[in-house]
Amino acid sequence: MSNVYIGLLHYPIYNKRMDVITSSITNLDLHDIARSSATYGVQRYFVIHPVEAQQALAKRILGYWTDGYGAEYNPDRYRAFQVLRLVDSLEAAFAEVEAECGQRPLLITTDARTYPNSIAYQVLRSKIQTGDQPVLILFGTGWGMVKEVMQQADYILEPIYGPGEYNHLSVRSAVAIILDRLLGEAWFSEK
Amino acid sequence: MSNVYIGLLHYPIYNKRMDVITSSITNLDLHDIARSSATYGVQRYFVIHPVEAQQALAKRILGYWTDGYGAEYNPDRYRAFQVLRLVDSLEAAFAEVEAECGQRPLLITTDARTYPNSIAYQVLRSKIQTGDQPVLILFGTGWGMVKEVMQQADYILEPIYGPGEYNHLSVRSAVAIILDRLLGEAWFSEK
Repeated sequence: MSNVYIGLLHYPIYNKRMDVITSSITNLDLHDIARSSATYGVQRYFVIHPVEAQQALAKRILGYWTDGYGAEYNPDRYRAFQVLRLVDSLEAAFAEVEAECGQRPLLITTDARTYPNSIAYQVLRSKIQTGDQPVLILFGTGWGMVKEVMQQADYILEPIYGPGEYNHLSVRSAVAIILDRLLGEAWFSEK
Repeated sequence: MSNVYIGLLHYPIYNKRMDVITSSITNLDLHDIARSSATYGVQRYFVIHPVEAQQALAKRILGYWTDGYGAEYNPDRYRAFQVLRLVDSLEAAFAEVEAECGQRPLLITTDARTYPNSIAYQVLRSKIQTGDQPVLILFGTGWGMVKEVMQQADYILEPIYGPGEYNHLSVRSAVAIILDRLLGEAWFSEK
């Protein structure tokens, strides 16, 4: 297990018109990101949503796979969901990391733009390997997290580029790629 | 644009009991994998399904984003779906690549196990960069593609590992990671 935590933020985020909104929890964000988290040894995947009814919906889905028939049918999914925690705010996620590690985590956010405090993947990968401080990597939903959250970040991960200028990955794909870059085996060294 | 094609195979694949089945097309496999394909400059994303009713369903979803209101609302999604093609068999995908490139593509498959003809990511990345031959990377659905398809492969990509032994990524996440390893910027070199 690493000292890496991730969070998926449903509030406060922007919609297309830059209004501040709350987005809905979606089934595949729970499944895909929990499976990626379990694969890369993420300590905890926080699903951050302030609305009780949305948390109840997520609990019902999780219940099926952790207590219900799904747990028996697919034990791999059961294991993935052990990593997931529902919390109602970013502060609550912070508090849980501090309670576990006795230390405030570095807050890392992600964005499709470059910022003055952008950090290269290889630099963050090394920081994680030293294990000095826990790291919480926060992902936005909708059209991205609000600027007040971005400003709290210690570092902002560089955007992910392919060969062209199109970079509109789903959050599920972005999480997978970022965890692979930060925590995956070093497939890129000489073999 | 690269000379890389990808395919998502819905038949013939295994279910959990190793019966040969046809899986359903799912909405997010269309969206997430098209977005990853557009980001990494994949030439064509083939969704391979033999059943006409399933193809009609996929066409309806695609129509919304390429001709309908969605095209106006989200032009980025429109662009992503330009990469996607519905075909009814692996052979039809092969034929389309050959018609475009005048050459049969190397068939690369993926699996969570290691095989005698496994290929390292860095080796395939170099092969793609030379541009000598088009490459078709095939992904399975369900519990994986049948062994007769695996045996047709020129190379099988090494499994993706995190630090532990859990490696049950969703196909959407696996596609994203594999495209990043093969076609992403070289984030891992000295910066």
